[in-house]
Amino acid sequence: MTRSNRPRYACRLNAFRGADGLPGMLARAADVGGIDAADLNFPDHFAGHGPAEVAALLDRHGLVLNGLAMRYYTEPAFRLGAFTNPDPVVRRAAIDLTRRGLDALAEAGGRLMTLWMGQDGVDYPFQGDYGRMWDDTVSALAEVAAHDPELDIAVEYKPNDPRAFALMPDVGTTLLAIREAGAANLGVTLDFAHVLYAGEMPAHAAHVVARHSRLLGVHLNDGYGHRDDGLIAGSIHPVQTVELFVELGRIGYDGVIYFDTFPDLGGLDPVAEARANVALVERLRAIAGDLAADVGLAAAIARQDAAASMRIVAARLYGAAR
Amino acid sequence: MTRSNRPRYACRLNAFRGADGLPGMLARAADVGGIDAADLNFPDHFAGHGPAEVAALLDRHGLVLNGLAMRYYTEPAFRLGAFTNPDPVVRRAAIDLTRRGLDALAEAGGRLMTLWMGQDGVDYPFQGDYGRMWDDTVSALAEVAAHDPELDIAVEYKPNDPRAFALMPDVGTTLLAIREAGAANLGVTLDFAHVLYAGEMPAHAAHVVARHSRLLGVHLNDGYGHRDDGLIAGSIHPVQTVELFVELGRIGYDGVIYFDTFPDLGGLDPVAEARANVALVERLRAIAGDLAADVGLAAAIARQDAAASMRIVAARLYGAAR
Amino acid sequence: MTRSNRPRYACRLNAFRGADGLPGMLARAADVGGIDAADLNFPDHFAGHGPAEVAALLDRHGLVLNGLAMRYYTEPAFRLGAFTNPDPVVRRAAIDLTRRGLDALAEAGGRLMTLWMGQDGVDYPFQGDYGRMWDDTVSALAEVAAHDPELDIAVEYKPNDPRAFALMPDVGTTLLAIREAGAANLGVTLDFAHVLYAGEMPAHAAHVVARHSRLLGVHLNDGYGHRDDGLIAGSIHPVQTVELFVELGRIGYDGVIYFDTFPDLGGLDPVAEARANVALVERLRAIAGDLAADVGLAAAIARQDAAASMRIVAARLYGAAR
Amino acid sequence: MTRSNRPRYACRLNAFRGADGLPGMLARAADVGGIDAADLNFPDHFAGHGPAEVAALLDRHGLVLNGLAMRYYTEPAFRLGAFTNPDPVVRRAAIDLTRRGLDALAEAGGRLMTLWMGQDGVDYPFQGDYGRMWDDTVSALAEVAAHDPELDIAVEYKPNDPRAFALMPDVGTTLLAIREAGAANLGVTLDFAHVLYAGEMPAHAAHVVARHSRLLGVHLNDGYGHRDDGLIAGSIHPVQTVELFVELGRIGYDGVIYFDTFPDLGGLDPVAEARANVALVERLRAIAGDLAADVGLAAAIARQDAAASMRIVAARLYGAAR
Repeated sequence: MTRSNRPRYACRLNAFRGADGLPGMLARAADVGGIDAADLNFPDHFAGHGPAEVAALLDRHGLVLNGLAMRYYTEPAFRLGAFTNPDPVVRRAAIDLTRRGLDALAEAGGRLMTLWMGQDGVDYPFQGDYGRMWDDTVSALAEVAAHDPELDIAVEYKPNDPRAFALMPDVGTTLLAIREAGAANLGVTLDFAHVLYAGEMPAHAAHVVARHSRLLGVHLNDGYGHRDDGLIAGSIHPVQTVELFVELGRIGYDGVIYFDTFPDLGGLDPVAEARANVALVERLRAIAGDLAADVGLAAAIARQDAAASMRIVAARLYGAAR
Repeated sequence: MTRSNRPRYACRLNAFRGADGLPGMLARAADVGGIDAADLNFPDHFAGHGPAEVAALLDRHGLVLNGLAMRYYTEPAFRLGAFTNPDPVVRRAAIDLTRRGLDALAEAGGRLMTLWMGQDGVDYPFQGDYGRMWDDTVSALAEVAAHDPELDIAVEYKPNDPRAFALMPDVGTTLLAIREAGAANLGVTLDFAHVLYAGEMPAHAAHVVARHSRLLGVHLNDGYGHRDDGLIAGSIHPVQTVELFVELGRIGYDGVIYFDTFPDLGGLDPVAEARANVALVERLRAIAGDLAADVGLAAAIARQDAAASMRIVAARLYGAAR
Repeated sequence: MTRSNRPRYACRLNAFRGADGLPGMLARAADVGGIDAADLNFPDHFAGHGPAEVAALLDRHGLVLNGLAMRYYTEPAFRLGAFTNPDPVVRRAAIDLTRRGLDALAEAGGRLMTLWMGQDGVDYPFQGDYGRMWDDTVSALAEVAAHDPELDIAVEYKPNDPRAFALMPDVGTTLLAIREAGAANLGVTLDFAHVLYAGEMPAHAAHVVARHSRLLGVHLNDGYGHRDDGLIAGSIHPVQTVELFVELGRIGYDGVIYFDTFPDLGGLDPVAEARANVALVERLRAIAGDLAADVGLAAAIARQDAAASMRIVAARLYGAAR
Repeated sequence: MTRSNRPRYACRLNAFRGADGLPGMLARAADVGGIDAADLNFPDHFAGHGPAEVAALLDRHGLVLNGLAMRYYTEPAFRLGAFTNPDPVVRRAAIDLTRRGLDALAEAGGRLMTLWMGQDGVDYPFQGDYGRMWDDTVSALAEVAAHDPELDIAVEYKPNDPRAFALMPDVGTTLLAIREAGAANLGVTLDFAHVLYAGEMPAHAAHVVARHSRLLGVHLNDGYGHRDDGLIAGSIHPVQTVELFVELGRIGYDGVIYFDTFPDLGGLDPVAEARANVALVERLRAIAGDLAADVGLAAAIARQDAAASMRIVAARLYGAAR
């Protein structure tokens, strides 16, 4: 877990939303200290700013562009689906919007596009043609991946929201779709709270992604596993957060950690909240570095002796008697 | 949805458990009326009965052997894992037990072995080596599949139980493992309550299985999605049950429907409860046959118009105004 | 279950939102057919319309005012709490807004105010002073109840949203708070999807409310118990919906059924979706009327014989063999 | 959080089950180190041992009797309910068994009886008469409380298991029932994993219990909130565990902490696992003591500033930068 000099942390810009638009959001993010990259939403954050202007804005605040995330909100018709919309015209509009997003990404100097296909799924039994929807998902992924092979495209899965059942709700199904699409620049972004909500163990999900595809992005936050709570990273599930960092080291993930948290919804000061994310994660990351090198822990894991491994982890994490 | 003259329904024999052992269980199952097949657990149900004797017992009661299901309970050491046990000796014992089960299956004249690898997973972060466990799962699946290529082997996934996180918790991950194992006689068994508990839509899960592997078994029951409730099929989620039957028709599943319900735990009379399963499912199946041919419903689904499809389904199912 | 000539159904007006404001929403709701009452949000729906004008608008469309529901969105400060806000000035603003809402309700000729205190709770451990927050909830309920004893005030509980843990998340805790507040005009509104999400059985929740307080409102919809899905009533859980209607008859609830569904989020036509709500519920209600008088069902319930009761219910509901 | 010289920790004896019966279980529990009290199940653990003999056995191992927990397993008829069984004879048997348990408790020198009424509830809609079942619960609680007013009786709630819907599933409903029963020697036992499973915040649940009744017992363990996982205390949710200890100090709970964990099901060595419980909880308890006295934390909580409180908690718990 050696520290690279690559950018390390980004945070959700909309938490800093104000009357002053994107420039204000970036200024406040830069003011956090420790935030050195940014993810922007497309097309929202490009309203009134061309890609070159966005790049200049980022540069002015010392922020590197980590990537873009598509938002399919511009047309009410997307409510019934983006890549899987039953109307071919709307579906085409979703794909074309994504391609324009990829162009903006390239122009702004970024490399990573994140897709969260939350509209693509069903709310009801007898609502969708599962075969057609799956085909449409796979072919759209293939098409947007082919648009610019220099750009990486990450699918960020989530069990539901807004659809009650997403077509790509969990790590396994997402990897099946990516494998079918068959493009080398496709991969996965893990969001910690989505992973909990999907009933998965974060480190295991990261392992499965690395085994079958590529881990392209990591969103940290925390929650209770019942919904996408958007809490401060490490505030509820520190042990699983530390284990995820150990696994990230093992699979060689060296990308940005994006704090996908919702201080705005919770009435918290977003700057103080972002600082809490950085402080907690820096600490848990350092602990992960130590635990990754702990031979006693490795031996306990090799025999699945959780009583022993919990003693070691709790000693390092909480100072419990080892 | 034409009716075949193949066996149609089996039920959980242990619900009929009594002092008289397997013969008594089979006698009571045969007494239900409508139950014409049986699934037995291995090795439990073979205690004191060789495969040939079991076959004769089934025949005496007019029951066809649908298949066997492995139970890894014979050694306490399996509590830490069967195919993924960190002790190579215990892991080997689990594989060998499965092979003996396959031999018993063949001798007794059945074709389908069901594997529920509930012990294979972790309870804690920092408990397991995910890479080694996944490798061990895939290689064990390949080995047992190779033991007798004439026999089908179905993985029945479940999110947890007894492990807090199963290695094969949902449809997507299970299909990834099966694909890696790469044997033509591997497939999936869907259990309705497990599917609900995994947060999946049953018909969609069946579709995904048929697309990427083979659907080898269907366990019906019902519940509330919070645990494996084991309730009477169709008692809580009739619409999703009907949709599953429509999908089973579409993918050509013509195997046995096994009622995996727990009247014994709930203090219900198991014969009356089994009759309720048959009565409800026969009715929901007939409704599914009608809906599969409904062109108005097909059109509503094609445009994802759930208001229209719910009107049609409710009219047919409850007699609501169409 | 005799039909009264009181208004029977209302639906969520915001599903009909358009550029034409409240008048347009009311026109479309009236156009559904079967919707004869309306619930309005305060202060949102009163923007630009005084209570008398709202009453006239309703009258023009043949809609009776069922009641108002408070919305604590007007000040960003409410994000950290309304009745439990740690800032006494903000807390006072929330109570005063509620009192103005009660005045508007009285002026518009309604009798029922619904409070959903979703902001009042915590997102984190170590975030709130539980004792102070509970005291503040109880005293605010008492104060708003005392504002106009002629008006009924219903607490609509929900496990979370936006707070991760609501102070009044379920039926039991809500009834404890209402009992402490000690006002005769306080009661409860049940929302079917909230009840499922709280892990409760709807008919049981209705019974507990009637036993310890008063059931003042019923919101119907459906979902999967994992979140507030807002689906068409009866589309997923018809048996529990029917059981709820039987219980409503038993406890003498004769108020409006409000369809709290989200066709707009799901891309459905809101008029068609509202018609589906009416059609399904009318049917399930008629079935409930029959089952309430079924002596065989009463006998099965008296001995907790669910196999027998499911046969009877399925025969009446789906036409299964009895 | 001054240390009393009262007994402090007990653990689940059945985790130590072996061929040597209760004496062996007690010997192994005493061997853990740090376990100085025991909870026994009635009637199971009294099979072959009278209360006086049990007391002597405990004494021999230096263990204080914390209390007994009723187990309604002796008659298959209890599967359909204990206090709420529809058969008056079975219901009477459940109450009488409880009274014998109370007599054994008194004879063995203990004071606390724990009731987990898991059988009392329903699996299906249309299965139970909710009014009759509630009445039966309340009157049985009153009757067993009156049997010996010197003994405390704690209700330990759990959302389900074995019934899909327990009559007393959460803190609020349990307190309503206890209030109706109206006996001074009734109270509540909180089980951390049950509380998580009920969707509650542990410290808040403890506060609500103390406000409306008495907190008589605390079961610690951990899990993921999806079921009763029975993991090592503090292994998953340390922050909520620490907050619970702060609240226990505030409300003056000075009773035994019982580790209700399942090493046996997970294939862990029960002695090592019990030592892990003691080590982690001792540490988290010490941290709770410090945080209870932290004026900065108190100030952050007073303004619901979770960013600030998480910084303080993480600094003390993980050593994160404050």
